[in-house]
Amino acid sequence: MRDVAVIGIGMTKWGELWEKSLRDIFVETALVALDDAGVDHIDAMYVGCMSGGLFVGQEHLSSLLADYLGVAPIPAVRVESACASGGLAFRQGFIDVASGMSEIVLVAGVEKMTDVGVDEATYVLSTAADQEYESYHGITFPGLYAMIARAHIHAYGTTREQLAHVAVKNHQHGAMNPLAQYRQKITVEDVLNSTLVADPLRVLDCSPITDGAAAVILCPVNLAKKISKHPIARVIGSGHATDTIAFHSRSDLTSLEGTMRAAGAAYKMAGIGPGQIHLAEVHDCFTIAEICVIEALGFVERGHGGKAAKSGMTALGGKIPVNTSGGLKSKGHPVGATGVAQVYEIVKQLRGDAGERQVTNARVGLTQNMGGTGGSTVVHILEVQP
Amino acid sequence: MRDVAVIGIGMTKWGELWEKSLRDIFVETALVALDDAGVDHIDAMYVGCMSGGLFVGQEHLSSLLADYLGVAPIPAVRVESACASGGLAFRQGFIDVASGMSEIVLVAGVEKMTDVGVDEATYVLSTAADQEYESYHGITFPGLYAMIARAHIHAYGTTREQLAHVAVKNHQHGAMNPLAQYRQKITVEDVLNSTLVADPLRVLDCSPITDGAAAVILCPVNLAKKISKHPIARVIGSGHATDTIAFHSRSDLTSLEGTMRAAGAAYKMAGIGPGQIHLAEVHDCFTIAEICVIEALGFVERGHGGKAAKSGMTALGGKIPVNTSGGLKSKGHPVGATGVAQVYEIVKQLRGDAGERQVTNARVGLTQNMGGTGGSTVVHILEVQP
Repeated sequence: MRDVAVIGIGMTKWGELWEKSLRDIFVETALVALDDAGVDHIDAMYVGCMSGGLFVGQEHLSSLLADYLGVAPIPAVRVESACASGGLAFRQGFIDVASGMSEIVLVAGVEKMTDVGVDEATYVLSTAADQEYESYHGITFPGLYAMIARAHIHAYGTTREQLAHVAVKNHQHGAMNPLAQYRQKITVEDVLNSTLVADPLRVLDCSPITDGAAAVILCPVNLAKKISKHPIARVIGSGHATDTIAFHSRSDLTSLEGTMRAAGAAYKMAGIGPGQIHLAEVHDCFTIAEICVIEALGFVERGHGGKAAKSGMTALGGKIPVNTSGGLKSKGHPVGATGVAQVYEIVKQLRGDAGERQVTNARVGLTQNMGGTGGSTVVHILEVQP
Repeated sequence: MRDVAVIGIGMTKWGELWEKSLRDIFVETALVALDDAGVDHIDAMYVGCMSGGLFVGQEHLSSLLADYLGVAPIPAVRVESACASGGLAFRQGFIDVASGMSEIVLVAGVEKMTDVGVDEATYVLSTAADQEYESYHGITFPGLYAMIARAHIHAYGTTREQLAHVAVKNHQHGAMNPLAQYRQKITVEDVLNSTLVADPLRVLDCSPITDGAAAVILCPVNLAKKISKHPIARVIGSGHATDTIAFHSRSDLTSLEGTMRAAGAAYKMAGIGPGQIHLAEVHDCFTIAEICVIEALGFVERGHGGKAAKSGMTALGGKIPVNTSGGLKSKGHPVGATGVAQVYEIVKQLRGDAGERQVTNARVGLTQNMGGTGGSTVVHILEVQP
């Protein structure tokens, strides 16, 4: 397999983009990535999108978007793995370039979620859970993650305040990201006094519903060295794992087995461990998710995720900054786009281009993107080349 | 890139499978393929499915199906490209093995279409067209293909009877396939007297709505030589192309540019041309589709597709048998499964295991699977190894 680099990144403002359609958002964002890479053609395209069918009545997205970007007839592939669709599209693009099949590949993630009402959006998102054993009976994702939070509080004494600190931190970071959906800073009290959604989770524990896209350009490292005008971010680790979707089959709700396995594979490929990661973008769809994820990635011991959030260890300036982009919580969570936007942030940081949210000496970054409550997880590790 | 072989194939009876759910159909079929390959583990899985979200309220299918097959936590990827989802899943599995990322890969296609009513199914299928410029305004796929048929009749003098001959031939073939949905033989008169759907297409010009799955197992040729108990079918060509989805952007409705490009790429990789193909499985979602496809593949000259069907050239015993499985028309068309079922048929033929529908001296076979009216097309060429 060939070494693969990210040579272009693109993102546009996320939010409730009433005046733009899915194809508009995608094209606008892909053009930013192409411009950033300085390339005038691509050989293949991968698009992560969770549910074009249910959100906007459009399947067959890869061809439609290739056409609107003006790159048809190149091969274009849509990949779906619920909220991990973007991360998985990135992995498939990586495999494509690594295999020798394609030289320059565009990977994008996109979701247009606000064309349906909130109830409908909640239903669409629930199709990431087990339809026959979970969603059909009325469970929604805030409910599923509330059960994880209750289990974590019960097992490890995690506190309501510790959960709130995750949201506070990510809004602090997001306030420095001009592309984030919600840029206001919030306090622990704001979180604790916000509307209860699914006990113990309140609305400020939850990532929002968002329209948005992100895109990156991949090519072999050897080609990147010739054509890239930026510091080269090499993909040194890639891991992907599945897990049971339904809760009734899991032995421990607080343990993200998929994340552990995907991270294990990525660490092994990279030849490094969690101690050598300088920053990470992880899947904080709910505050409790970030707590479980940083434990599963090995950044902290099991049960210590809540304390880490409160201690500042995962904030900008801490031992391992997590979600400097603002994370899903503040930046927004257009589900299919999230995994690609994580790569965008890591590459921006590795290039030293992250402005006021720049992590000092960021040379190795990790992304962790998961579908549902961890039924699928994709982890990547990127390193800036000397 | 490594050479890749198909070492296992599985298919189960297609039809209106009221008593089985999507996951049941998938698992049953995947087990047949695993048993046929004689392997007890796989390293990764690719699933083609057009719209689990709209047909059965289930996204996140790759993880769900990996879990129900008992193969989680392996990487599992769902690929969508409308009715070409199966063919594209096969290509992605091929790239995965060719890259060196995985050794043994399961590729499956599955669709459960009869859990919704016919009107709803027609809507779901229409999400493969351009939502903003076509489907929203009421066009359905019979209408789109009727326009192609009218254009072909106008340009080349193709007759209503020639269209009927495609259906008659494919039902003749399907009558010999115990897994086909509709095994009855039909006559030209049956087709001409059947209910008008979208002039000039009648109901017997149209493929049915079907529940079903198909699965194959891929591995490197070197490994296949050691472990396979069957003649080895090597993937010698793979091509994938996109095209504009909306008709208003095409210069000629009768010309399947995507098929020409995907076939061109597959022929180039294989180092052969259409004259060296012994049999083909092509995307006859409507009778006119098979006519346009065999022209685009170069089996006949432009405009001669209708005559070919009538002459017997594409029937079993003819110069190049097309759709010996019964094709989408008789075998059925569970949209995400179709592309994988095409590979199933070709491998069965290359092994000499096709029973009464066996093509004599079949050594090189081609599959052509397309999404919508050709917005995406995937072509593969397989050759049995001496």
